[in-house]
Amino acid sequence: MKSTVIKELVNVELKNPILVEGFPGLGMVGSIATTYLVKQLKAQKMATLYSPHFPYHVLVNKKGSARLLRGEFYFWKNETGENDFILLTGDSQAQTIEGQFEVANSILDFVEKKNVKTVITLGGYRNEIEETPNVVAVSTNPALFEKALKAKAISSEAGTPIVGTAGLLLGLAKFRKIDALCLLGETRGYFPDPKTAKSILEILKGIITVDVDLKGLDEEINRSKEILGRMQDIEKRRLKYMEKMRRVEEERMTYIS
Amino acid sequence: MKSTVIKELVNVELKNPILVEGFPGLGMVGSIATTYLVKQLKAQKMATLYSPHFPYHVLVNKKGSARLLRGEFYFWKNETGENDFILLTGDSQAQTIEGQFEVANSILDFVEKKNVKTVITLGGYRNEIEETPNVVAVSTNPALFEKALKAKAISSEAGTPIVGTAGLLLGLAKFRKIDALCLLGETRGYFPDPKTAKSILEILKGIITVDVDLKGLDEEINRSKEILGRMQDIEKRRLKYMEKMRRVEEERMTYIS
Amino acid sequence: MKSTVIKELVNVELKNPILVEGFPGLGMVGSIATTYLVKQLKAQKMATLYSPHFPYHVLVNKKGSARLLRGEFYFWKNETGENDFILLTGDSQAQTIEGQFEVANSILDFVEKKNVKTVITLGGYRNEIEETPNVVAVSTNPALFEKALKAKAISSEAGTPIVGTAGLLLGLAKFRKIDALCLLGETRGYFPDPKTAKSILEILKGIITVDVDLKGLDEEINRSKEILGRMQDIEKRRLKYMEKMRRVEEERMTYIS
Amino acid sequence: MKSTVIKELVNVELKNPILVEGFPGLGMVGSIATTYLVKQLKAQKMATLYSPHFPYHVLVNKKGSARLLRGEFYFWKNETGENDFILLTGDSQAQTIEGQFEVANSILDFVEKKNVKTVITLGGYRNEIEETPNVVAVSTNPALFEKALKAKAISSEAGTPIVGTAGLLLGLAKFRKIDALCLLGETRGYFPDPKTAKSILEILKGIITVDVDLKGLDEEINRSKEILGRMQDIEKRRLKYMEKMRRVEEERMTYIS
Repeated sequence: MKSTVIKELVNVELKNPILVEGFPGLGMVGSIATTYLVKQLKAQKMATLYSPHFPYHVLVNKKGSARLLRGEFYFWKNETGENDFILLTGDSQAQTIEGQFEVANSILDFVEKKNVKTVITLGGYRNEIEETPNVVAVSTNPALFEKALKAKAISSEAGTPIVGTAGLLLGLAKFRKIDALCLLGETRGYFPDPKTAKSILEILKGIITVDVDLKGLDEEINRSKEILGRMQDIEKRRLKYMEKMRRVEEERMTYIS
Repeated sequence: MKSTVIKELVNVELKNPILVEGFPGLGMVGSIATTYLVKQLKAQKMATLYSPHFPYHVLVNKKGSARLLRGEFYFWKNETGENDFILLTGDSQAQTIEGQFEVANSILDFVEKKNVKTVITLGGYRNEIEETPNVVAVSTNPALFEKALKAKAISSEAGTPIVGTAGLLLGLAKFRKIDALCLLGETRGYFPDPKTAKSILEILKGIITVDVDLKGLDEEINRSKEILGRMQDIEKRRLKYMEKMRRVEEERMTYIS
Repeated sequence: MKSTVIKELVNVELKNPILVEGFPGLGMVGSIATTYLVKQLKAQKMATLYSPHFPYHVLVNKKGSARLLRGEFYFWKNETGENDFILLTGDSQAQTIEGQFEVANSILDFVEKKNVKTVITLGGYRNEIEETPNVVAVSTNPALFEKALKAKAISSEAGTPIVGTAGLLLGLAKFRKIDALCLLGETRGYFPDPKTAKSILEILKGIITVDVDLKGLDEEINRSKEILGRMQDIEKRRLKYMEKMRRVEEERMTYIS
Repeated sequence: MKSTVIKELVNVELKNPILVEGFPGLGMVGSIATTYLVKQLKAQKMATLYSPHFPYHVLVNKKGSARLLRGEFYFWKNETGENDFILLTGDSQAQTIEGQFEVANSILDFVEKKNVKTVITLGGYRNEIEETPNVVAVSTNPALFEKALKAKAISSEAGTPIVGTAGLLLGLAKFRKIDALCLLGETRGYFPDPKTAKSILEILKGIITVDVDLKGLDEEINRSKEILGRMQDIEKRRLKYMEKMRRVEEERMTYIS
């Protein structure tokens, strides 16, 4: 394995498939959302991506075995709607600049062969959220962008960077005449954030016709709320302390100068 | 995209074209100057450079779309003078050593095919400037060097390094029998510096026959002056504080030893 | 040498050979154990691995000469048992992500040609050990895993990463239908840890039929115990000091806020 | 330039040539020594080495031009002795692990074609020197090693690493049946160290028959002595201060615990 490889497990015929990608990133938002979709839709595994640009370790599993870090492609046959889905998530992103480009191109090589014409990437962006996390939409296709805004996504400031696979797929898809949409949910990003993942999926449901019950995420959200509560306490005390220290320091500066 | 690629948008015939390059760097001097030239000359886009050595993110644009970081080649037909121009600027420089060499070579591959015989690179060098920023000239061609000095550029100390694309183009052009000139303007380098960009363009106008009104930069300069004023205040207070601290520390050392 | 190379010194016919690998890592556990096996079994050198991903220095030897960092393959003909052995140890692991994958693949290319069907990798994992260090077993083959547990290895928590060559060999062997077992001994990891190496070899002897006397390691263990004793004293004092400092800091925070 | 290239300027026939290499490193010892040899012998330039693994900048020269960082090969026809010389020095070493291996292999590819059978590399190793700096010899050829010891070089402790080009040439020469000797002079390494360079050349003169007057280095040595004197004063005060601080800290620890 000198470069990224994708091993196909089953060769399925898919109907106008759309790729939904969510690799680990800020708040694990993209991977939580995609993994939830895989479970709810009972999507089936179709291919595995391995890369020498992923971290050089293996992960032990429950049976005492171990495996390389990987990306996983799942498919879901959409009986009622127009588009089948390919869902992609994984353990990690590539660890070098060149690796990031290689992995993103490998993904597009693969889905292009599967006749994917639309790619939707999911991720997070760092912000201090209040109640309901905002979801930003960015798209290379104006119609898709409008659809996302109608589904209550908001637009992003010009110049904002979208880092990693979620961004590169968008940028590289253009060269293959594949439309791309990126949904980024607001997240503190310190810890896995199922609440923001849910917000993203709510927007996604307004864009693509997929009937998924999102209640299953609430338990996870409640658990993370508790952690968040404790973290906010710590944070508040830290900020208070920093503020005091700053004032003390200011006084000292005044005194010295 | 395993390596840097340049996608040609229009195939134009150019008359003894000169390449003027200004990628982002210290004080954004090179890119401000080149971008200003593009606007004033109403130069037209001719090609785009993409590289897996650029940072692995995309940038959101005003229309809610996003694009890869890139370099952009523009051309300008010089009706009255001897040389047409190719203007090159971009979002970023390559992020690895090997990437820097690859991007610079790709640029030269491209412009060599366009019969470019002269390359002019623009950039900044760090210095505490007083009133009018100095512009240093370095050239692989003695006649071009003399011309730059006559246009009020100054020469640089031997041994000075010129880092990045502006430098490598100079060094690599030599192997292709392409003459190269580098103009580096003095800048603090902390923030975008249109004033130094203007100084460079003034020198450039003395070297190549291009009629560009530089007044358009003054507004930008005034805005940056305000920022500079505030930064200098902060800087002065910081230095004063550092000086006091140093003296306090000295006293303490004397006391301890 | 643009990529990793393995130079074969003798071409031996081996009977169902098993590879035992122990490169330097945490507590040098893997390399101490493998080197001890080489010595006790009087295994003979069969091949050398060189890599441009190893650190770029040479090591001076006793005769005033120097050599590149390398991996060394030894073989041992097992007169009474079913399996001959290939033992692999070395000076260093690859220093980059891509290098790690390349070296692991080169090793598997080589031993696959030698008809190796089982790979056993040895290493350490960081833990505060009490008396006898635990040895964790991870295997891609359930029967081999069971055998290791019967030999008193313990199982590892799911999600644990195994970093470096010991892990990658496990993950990559799967693609070649080579069974793999990894034994990781608990170690503080601060200094060479022959005690943990001995624990690993004790487990290994319960898995593969190899008659090796492990008493030879005891002298090394005694020496390291003395070092450990002194280090623990330092550590205790450090922790005590840290604890005091923490309390002082807490009081100060209470005072300020 | 995707990889290291060596451009031959003149194709000379050399008589049993020996390569003497001194790239910049600790105390610039190797490059000072080699550059001095080039000047004293009036050696002529024969080839230039360029590498995309060197730092990505150019250096301005006295005439206002600039050039890439490079290595330079010189030759010297030895009228009276048995061996002509190839002298190699340069501006920099490769900046990545893989680059270091590539550059060293390129050098050996080139000198092998020139029928070089012996390579001598020069460098420094860090030590607090007293009066005359020691010079350590390491060689892949026992006879050459003995010769170096007779010339008053000393042997090195086993396990000592020799980092960079001076080391890799030694390690890689072995695969091409080229003998190699490395001479490393003791140096503080903080600043260019002509004194240690002189010590190395004195040893070198005892090994190869080359008549070079070393007095020319004395002026440089005197200049560096003054700098050294001032640095030692600073160093002494720093150590004294550190010692005091350590004692103050100890008292504080005693007080807290």
